[in-house]
Parts: sequence; C-alpha cells; structure tokens
Amino acid sequence: MRQSQIFTKTAKNYPEGEEAKNAKLLIKGGFINKSSAGVYSFLPLGLRVLNKINNIIREEINELGAEELLMPALVHKKYWEQADRWGVDVIYRTGGKENSAGVMRREDFEYGLGWTHEEVISAIAKNFINSYKDLPKSVYQIQTKFRAESRVQGGLLRGKEFLMKDLYSFHANKEDLDSYYQKVISAYKKIFKRLGFEALVTEASGGAFTKEFTHEFQVLNPAGEDTIYYCDKCGFSQNKEIFNAASHKNCSGEIKSGRAIEVGNVFKLGTKFSDAFNLFYLNKDGVKLPVIMGSYGIGSTRVMGAIVEQYNDEKGILWPENTAPFQVHLLEISGRNQDKIGKIGTKIYNNLQKSGIEVLYDERNISAGEKFADADLIGIPYRAVISEKTGNKIEIKKRGEKKIKLVNEKEIVKLLKQNQQPRQ
Amino acid sequence: MRQSQIFTKTAKNYPEGEEAKNAKLLIKGGFINKSSAGVYSFLPLGLRVLNKINNIIREEINELGAEELLMPALVHKKYWEQADRWGVDVIYRTGGKENSAGVMRREDFEYGLGWTHEEVISAIAKNFINSYKDLPKSVYQIQTKFRAESRVQGGLLRGKEFLMKDLYSFHANKEDLDSYYQKVISAYKKIFKRLGFEALVTEASGGAFTKEFTHEFQVLNPAGEDTIYYCDKCGFSQNKEIFNAASHKNCSGEIKSGRAIEVGNVFKLGTKFSDAFNLFYLNKDGVKLPVIMGSYGIGSTRVMGAIVEQYNDEKGILWPENTAPFQVHLLEISGRNQDKIGKIGTKIYNNLQKSGIEVLYDERNISAGEKFADADLIGIPYRAVISEKTGNKIEIKKRGEKKIKLVNEKEIVKLLKQNQQPRQ
Repeated sequence: MRQSQIFTKTAKNYPEGEEAKNAKLLIKGGFINKSSAGVYSFLPLGLRVLNKINNIIREEINELGAEELLMPALVHKKYWEQADRWGVDVIYRTGGKENSAGVMRREDFEYGLGWTHEEVISAIAKNFINSYKDLPKSVYQIQTKFRAESRVQGGLLRGKEFLMKDLYSFHANKEDLDSYYQKVISAYKKIFKRLGFEALVTEASGGAFTKEFTHEFQVLNPAGEDTIYYCDKCGFSQNKEIFNAASHKNCSGEIKSGRAIEVGNVFKLGTKFSDAFNLFYLNKDGVKLPVIMGSYGIGSTRVMGAIVEQYNDEKGILWPENTAPFQVHLLEISGRNQDKIGKIGTKIYNNLQKSGIEVLYDERNISAGEKFADADLIGIPYRAVISEKTGNKIEIKKRGEKKIKLVNEKEIVKLLKQNQQPRQ
Repeated sequence: MRQSQIFTKTAKNYPEGEEAKNAKLLIKGGFINKSSAGVYSFLPLGLRVLNKINNIIREEINELGAEELLMPALVHKKYWEQADRWGVDVIYRTGGKENSAGVMRREDFEYGLGWTHEEVISAIAKNFINSYKDLPKSVYQIQTKFRAESRVQGGLLRGKEFLMKDLYSFHANKEDLDSYYQKVISAYKKIFKRLGFEALVTEASGGAFTKEFTHEFQVLNPAGEDTIYYCDKCGFSQNKEIFNAASHKNCSGEIKSGRAIEVGNVFKLGTKFSDAFNLFYLNKDGVKLPVIMGSYGIGSTRVMGAIVEQYNDEKGILWPENTAPFQVHLLEISGRNQDKIGKIGTKIYNNLQKSGIEVLYDERNISAGEKFADADLIGIPYRAVISEKTGNKIEIKKRGEKKIKLVNEKEIVKLLKQNQQPRQ
C-alpha cells in the first residue's frame, strides 16, 4: 500500500486526555481513533492488526473443532431475566417504550446489550441438543461486546465496546468437560505464543459458578489491572483474590508478585445456564440430564492493546511479526534524484507485492527525518530504505535494532519470506 | 464438513410466528435463529453464506480503492446532536445515568446505537483531511447497525440489528463526487450480479440532502416493501415516491410497476456533514472549502434474505453458487452395506476437500428420504449421492433440476472446479 494514498496520517503530538500508553501510541500512529471515553474506531492500519489477531485466534479455535457463528448484540430482557442477570451493573439497557410521562424505568427497557452470551447460546443450543448423540458440541463467535464500565483509563485494555472471541462448549458429563477444558488451555497457549505473549495460566476463583478454580491467562505488565503471584520455576500462578502461599508446594522457587493484563480466561459453567434454560439431554438409558457447559473468552481488542504495552520504546510501537500491519516499511529517500529513486522504489514495491509480502511504501514527498520518525512510530518489523546512497542495494533494518544490512532485491524477498511464520 | 458433527439440525416444521419466507426457510434449515422479533443469530451454516456475501462486497469495494475500517456501535449523543439527528425515531438510546427518581429522560441518555455513521466518519476524517492533496479519499466498514423498527415482519429483510457495508467518500469538488458516484454504481452492478441479482438502478428522492436524485438498487420481488415503476426496454426505473410517467422519454417501452427489495443505495451527501463537523480543506489557492461527501450502503444480511426470497421452491432454498454455504452436498445412502459405502464416501469426501471443494458430507445414520429432504431444504447447488446402486460412480444432480448424471471421481472434481467462479 502506498503511504501517500492511505486514509490516515500520523499525528505530531500524543492525544490529549489519554493516559494509557497503548492508546497514546495507537492514536498517534493512526491505528485507532477515540470516539468517546472507552469507545474507539479501528482505522485501516488498526483493522489490519485486529484482523491478524482474530485470524490467529480463529485458526486455533477451528482446530479444536468448534464452529463459528454470530449472535446479536440486542439481547432481549427475557434472556437476562431467565438467568437472573438483568440487574448486573455493566449492562447497557435500551429499547422499550417511554411511559406516558416520557420517562423510562429499568423495567421498561427491552434489551440489554450483550456483554457475554451464555444466555443466548443456551437458548439456541436447546434446538439442537436432545440426546447424548448430540454431545459434545462447541461453538464460538468473534463479536462486539458492550460493558458499561465506569473506569476506562486503559485505552484498549478496558473499553465500553470491544471485540471478543467467546467459545461455548456442551458436554454430557463432567469428565468430558474437564478434558475439553484442558484442550482449550493448550489451544490458548498456542494462540498467545503466536500473538507474542508469555501468558501465565493463573488460577482464579470460580465465583458463583464452580467450587473449582477457573483459569486466567495473564501477561505480566505494569499497565495491567490485576495483581498475580507466580513462580518462575514451576509455573505456579494465582491471582490476588485467591492467593495462598501454602498452595505453592514441592517447589524451591520463589513467589513473586506483579501487575498483569488478563488476555483470556476459561471457565467451567457447570449446569448454571442449562438449568436456567432447560437445556437437557437424554442419556443412553433414556434418563434426562442437564448439559454441562464451559465458556472461554479472549478479548481481541484488549490483546491489541496488550501487544502495544509489551512492545514499545520511546519512539513508538514494535509489532511482533505475526500481528504487524505490514511486514516491511519501504522508505524512498529521493532527495534531488526524485525520478530515478522513485522508479527504483516502484520496482521494488511491485516486486515485493508480487512475492506475497505486505509492504507499506512511503513514497511521500516529505523529509527523510519525518519518514524515519513515522516508521519508528508505526513500528513495522522491518524498515527498508532506498536512497541515492544505496545504489542498487536496499538498506534493511529491524525495528528496535541498530544493525543495518545492505541487501539486493533477491535477498530482501528471501529474508522476508523466511519470516512469514506459518501456523505450527 | 461432516453433517453428523455440525452444531445445527434442520427442523421438522416451519417456525411459529414467522411470516417471511426467507426467515421460515433459513430457520427450518438451521441457517439462522430468531432471538426476538427482528433480531437473529447467524448459525454456522448461515455465517458461511454471510461471509461469502461480505467477501464479494469487500472485493469490489477494495477494487474502488477504498480502505476498510471499523467504527463503534456506541455513538455518543454529541455526534448525533451536532448533525441534528439525536431525535430520529429509529435510534436506540442507551447509557447515561438514571436521575435521583430512578428514571431516564431522553436527554439523560449518553449514546445512540449507530444506525449509520456519517457523523462518526466526518469527525474522524477531520484528523486526516486538511488540504486538496488529501482528497479524494474513501473508507468503508462492514459493521452491525441498529434501528428501532416497529415493523419487523420481513425476516432478514428488515431487522432491528443487521449487518451493513457502508462506504463514505470525500471530495474536493462536485465533479469529483459525481465521477466517483458513477464508479460506485458500476461496482454495485458487479456486486449484485455476482450475488445473483438483476438489480434495477432506481431513481429516488434526495430528501433533505440533495436536489438531485439518489439511486436505489432494487430487486423485483413480491416480498419487497417498495413499489417501483420501471421499463424493461431502456432500464428506466423510479420509486413510487417520485414516479413521474412524463420522465420516461424517448423510449417506446411500457412502464410496469412491481414490488421490490432495496438491496443497496448510493447517496450524494454534499456538505451537510462537513458543514456540521467543520470538515474543511484548503484548495491550491489557500481558500478554505467544505469537503463534498457521498455515502453508499449495502445491507449484507438483507441481501441474504433477498437471495432466499429470489431462489426457493416448495422444498427449500436454491443457493446461487457464489453464496452457497457449500459447493456440493455429498449424501451417503448406505442401506445394509454401511461399512463398504462408508469407506467409499469417506474417500470421495477427502478427495473433494483436497481438491479445494467445499463439501457438506451427510454420513448420518438416517433414512435416504430424510437426507434427500434435508439436501433440498438446505439448497446446496449440487447433490452427489453414493449408494449400493451407484457402484464406483456418483449420482450428481443440480438443485432444482431433475436430470441425474452418473460420473466418476475425476469427473465430479472437474465439474465442480469448473463451477468455482473467479472474480471477473
């Protein structure tokens, strides 16, 4: 893509009134736009990143055998009431009729915007699950969620509107849920590794749903809202709410604590929703039993914010290769020789594109300094420069490193193709 | 995909309380689920169709040079007020605080759910458009829209929540807008052709925005809400609101009228939103001028409903090949020879998949009659049957035709590969 043609420009300054590093860098770089507190648009550069994140998640969840679907945001009050969640704080209520005095009371609203979809999926599953032969099943969506948050200082880490992958599984018995739960944990480990994180599988409370622990995937980062206690040696990790030093046994490692960003969670729901929605199945003996459910989330817009919090320096973002908006940023520094350098640049740009490499081509008529600053801010993993000095060669440099290498056209294609990481 | 493994099942009966043919067939077939009036989930089969529709739209809009982005559903009241649209009937209001008496008045709400995004995109564009050098630009999204409709009897033709492609363009002058507007009309013609429609480019009123006509893309169908007047001979078409027989000149063709489904529209906005949002640019002489805008919509979930209204018979749906959930429905009728036929079926299924053909493989242990009925209902373009009778051959039949052909494995791959229609 030619940089002179793209919709966005980088900003000269950081946005006012934005405290989170992820939002500051992403807004300055033209990845996102803040519409109002906790509500963002994903501009073309940002949507490229978001789609890459979503596709990594999608590939690994498909691999689990789950099928993708898409549920609505307008969730009718009747669903929330059936599971006794119409009164939760984070729900946005809408629809319904004003009364004769022109006012709305809580009971007058018709919908709560979906902040999670256990209710809707349970009602849907009832149409398709009747027998043990219909189990197990799992479905997921990558869909917009809404939560009426009062604290929204985290940029993409905590929004009022955000994108989430939510997976739901249905089982005939506890053993089958337990085994699937472990499979999801393995899939999540692959996902977070591909996304560039070392995520700690952290024990957390099961709340009202289960006496067992649930598990959060936590990324150590000072921008995180959570505090976790963990051991580098054995992988032990618990969140602050349930931490009990006595449960760290048989390991000589030291317990440390740190702030962390929760990028995913897995949850055994048991029969809470199947009971509420009469989601039963008949076993081999014809006995009617409640379906056992699990629910598993990854916030993909939050992941985008977390990547920026993990990978940045004083000049800008350092995208990991799997989630970068482009693989290489080609900078044409033409000086007085605009026609000649422009021709070489166009040739290299076309050649890279033909080789299946995603290139952002900065052919704008601005100073070298501005181009270098933009490249550092936008944070594409490789910067390739052509200028009067480079002749027939290309200067290639990794973002965040100082070492510059002179390569020819064949070599740059080879180098970048090597870095296209296939799914493992 | 193996039919025994998919999340959904077809239903025995049509859903109760659903009048629209598209919703009746799509629910019975397991494509969609009705969550509440005018609100649907897209189940795995339905999402496959919807993604195909979206990708056809996306390819042609990308071809226009527009960049994809994603705007939020929570649109703050300040945006709607700035363009004087906070009071419109179809807006869902949410957020904000109940007053001390526990009630909400219209002015207490904080957001209106996005039913269109002229306001938000104008505010975003202001960050990136300052000079004539920044023009023209165009951006689009494929995003969920919300409209508080009172009439929702049309199934996917009129929902309270639906998916829409909305494209916005920005120009330095009227001539540039006019020329882009024609390009969008050409792109829309390609899109609707690929989607299986003969859409009539129909003149409609510009309302408060422009004295010129706007254009609707209308598909003649009795399920449509609109009435249009059109001429088969010269392509003249006007909607009922503006029809004037006197404007049908220089053509001997006869004017007919009919019900039609509006699947898309194109609209010259002029400076309505750039004035409201102070979206100005400096021309070559340094004069400050308002940006001229256009807005162009296609409702992709409505398109899905319209396809079903256009292509169905008493047995079910007849998906056009470009939007079918799968290319071929492979039915294994195993009778007493379950092992032998099962082995042949699995071999053919694997072979078709390896050849890049999308197959739904019905290997369920149910009667041949049920399988044939499901195949007709689901409406995949080709049905391939293997049974004790077919030996080493496969019986292939087009949905909606009676002619059955016996082919071997090589021939079926060749036939189906021929039918994979590339973009033209």
